Amino acid sequence: MAFLYKADPVRGAQWGALFAQQAPDIAFHLWPDVGDPAAIRYLAAWQPPDNPLEALPNLEVIFSVGAGVDQFDLSRVPEHIPVVRMIEPGIAQGMVEYVTQAVLTIHRDVAAYAAQQARQEWKARHVRPASSRRIGVLGLGMLGTAVLERLRLFGFDCAGWSRSGGQIEGVQCHAGAAALDAFLARTDILVCLLPLTQETQGMLDAALFNKLPRGASLIQTGRGPHLNQEDLLAALESGQLDTAILDVTDPEPLPAGHALWTHPRVRITPHIASATRPEGAVETVLENLRRHERGLPLIGQVDRSRGY
Amino acid sequence: MAFLYKADPVRGAQWGALFAQQAPDIAFHLWPDVGDPAAIRYLAAWQPPDNPLEALPNLEVIFSVGAGVDQFDLSRVPEHIPVVRMIEPGIAQGMVEYVTQAVLTIHRDVAAYAAQQARQEWKARHVRPASSRRIGVLGLGMLGTAVLERLRLFGFDCAGWSRSGGQIEGVQCHAGAAALDAFLARTDILVCLLPLTQETQGMLDAALFNKLPRGASLIQTGRGPHLNQEDLLAALESGQLDTAILDVTDPEPLPAGHALWTHPRVRITPHIASATRPEGAVETVLENLRRHERGLPLIGQVDRSRGY
Repeated sequence: MAFLYKADPVRGAQWGALFAQQAPDIAFHLWPDVGDPAAIRYLAAWQPPDNPLEALPNLEVIFSVGAGVDQFDLSRVPEHIPVVRMIEPGIAQGMVEYVTQAVLTIHRDVAAYAAQQARQEWKARHVRPASSRRIGVLGLGMLGTAVLERLRLFGFDCAGWSRSGGQIEGVQCHAGAAALDAFLARTDILVCLLPLTQETQGMLDAALFNKLPRGASLIQTGRGPHLNQEDLLAALESGQLDTAILDVTDPEPLPAGHALWTHPRVRITPHIASATRPEGAVETVLENLRRHERGLPLIGQVDRSRGY
Repeated sequence: MAFLYKADPVRGAQWGALFAQQAPDIAFHLWPDVGDPAAIRYLAAWQPPDNPLEALPNLEVIFSVGAGVDQFDLSRVPEHIPVVRMIEPGIAQGMVEYVTQAVLTIHRDVAAYAAQQARQEWKARHVRPASSRRIGVLGLGMLGTAVLERLRLFGFDCAGWSRSGGQIEGVQCHAGAAALDAFLARTDILVCLLPLTQETQGMLDAALFNKLPRGASLIQTGRGPHLNQEDLLAALESGQLDTAILDVTDPEPLPAGHALWTHPRVRITPHIASATRPEGAVETVLENLRRHERGLPLIGQVDRSRGY
């Protein structure tokens, strides 16, 4: 049985070392060293080969190394091959850190104090209690749920929205298109943690921003194509939005000279909010290999009809 | 029975409104409108009058409007007058927000990413897992405990130190002078939440910084005089310390032109990490008035021998 890894080579080497320790019976290959293509039964990839079954005729399962599979062209993966998202605790931990830092940075006026420091000005600003700050998270999967469970401990007024809803203690969960406007109308800081699908692509646009209270802020930790970047710049200019913290852009890397880089109320980080950690990822993949051998359902298997 | 408030007049007006609702039988006075000085039995102050019993001959209790009483000259307050610190949930909530934001800002390299953004550079940096980041909190009172209980949820390697120690689940608590060096040697991010006393004044100095691992960072949320500011600047220059986030300075306001304002690895905020909230403060004070009438121990009463 052979396993092929096709993504970042530095992490791939870490996966290889962990496989050697924990599953020495599996032949681990690091792309482009495929060995005998017919021996490869499992593939872990950021992007699979264009025609996976031509390249790897006996492939049985494809694992994404990321939390999403939007970077896959699922139409090129035959229906009988399960596609599995990465469900790994390190991804959620990194995302909770990033979003908590971003929410508290907005909540506690950190940018305004930095501007005061540049002017050598010592002046206290009004502090809003967390209970009057309304956080809204789009997406109630593993990441959205983990973020909301942490933010509510700070006493924020927390709500979430997804297509099918959810149940989180102390959080108002809204479900479906009909509930979206009410969710947006009560949201001061909007966090995007949606999967990227045909339905959610371009969802963060002028029409959506106009349903938020004037002066709301955006934390974009979904995927670049969720956001209409021109509409964001216009909403910041008009004052409809106050601040945007973006960890993802379209395209990535964001090209030098793009207006988002230099906007004074936009903070950009290079898609680093969270990353799969090799230890947790290999543990999850090995558990799924055991399940696959026994015909059990796989953890994180993508529903092709939903696209995530 | 009359009550005198002598601190920020805007908050004083909020206290007055809350007293009118919740304790209409108490005559509430806002300094300098003292009314009959002999009628004043209770004083809430940031700084009491120089000779409290000359100004207010029938004074029975002094309440600090802040979490500490270091701003009081206790030698001028007769021993039979209890002095009470403010124990109010809003103070801890604000401090948890501030310190969590500061720790995550350091942990997730936010300043380095801001510098990259200024250069329009898209480059991921290595992310350390929280479990390998060692946080150390000086002071295990209400604030230090609340901060550690929140930070450990992020998976940080957390320790605390105080004169008499403490017990917090998942946190190594160190007690007393003999344990200080070992605590410092394992601390990457040091948070100061000590009371200001003769023993702790100037404690954050070159000798202490040299006991931290090289490249450690400081979050100073205690009181300005805990810190030797010249030693801090020298430690930042030598590389012994990497970053300092200061909410308090000595003096306050920090004078324009001071070297701390412009140091690229120092962030300064104007003593805003946490503030007493009028609702919680008035509730706590009224509870203490009821206790005082019945001869019960007061919540937050200062031990004169310890100074806090």
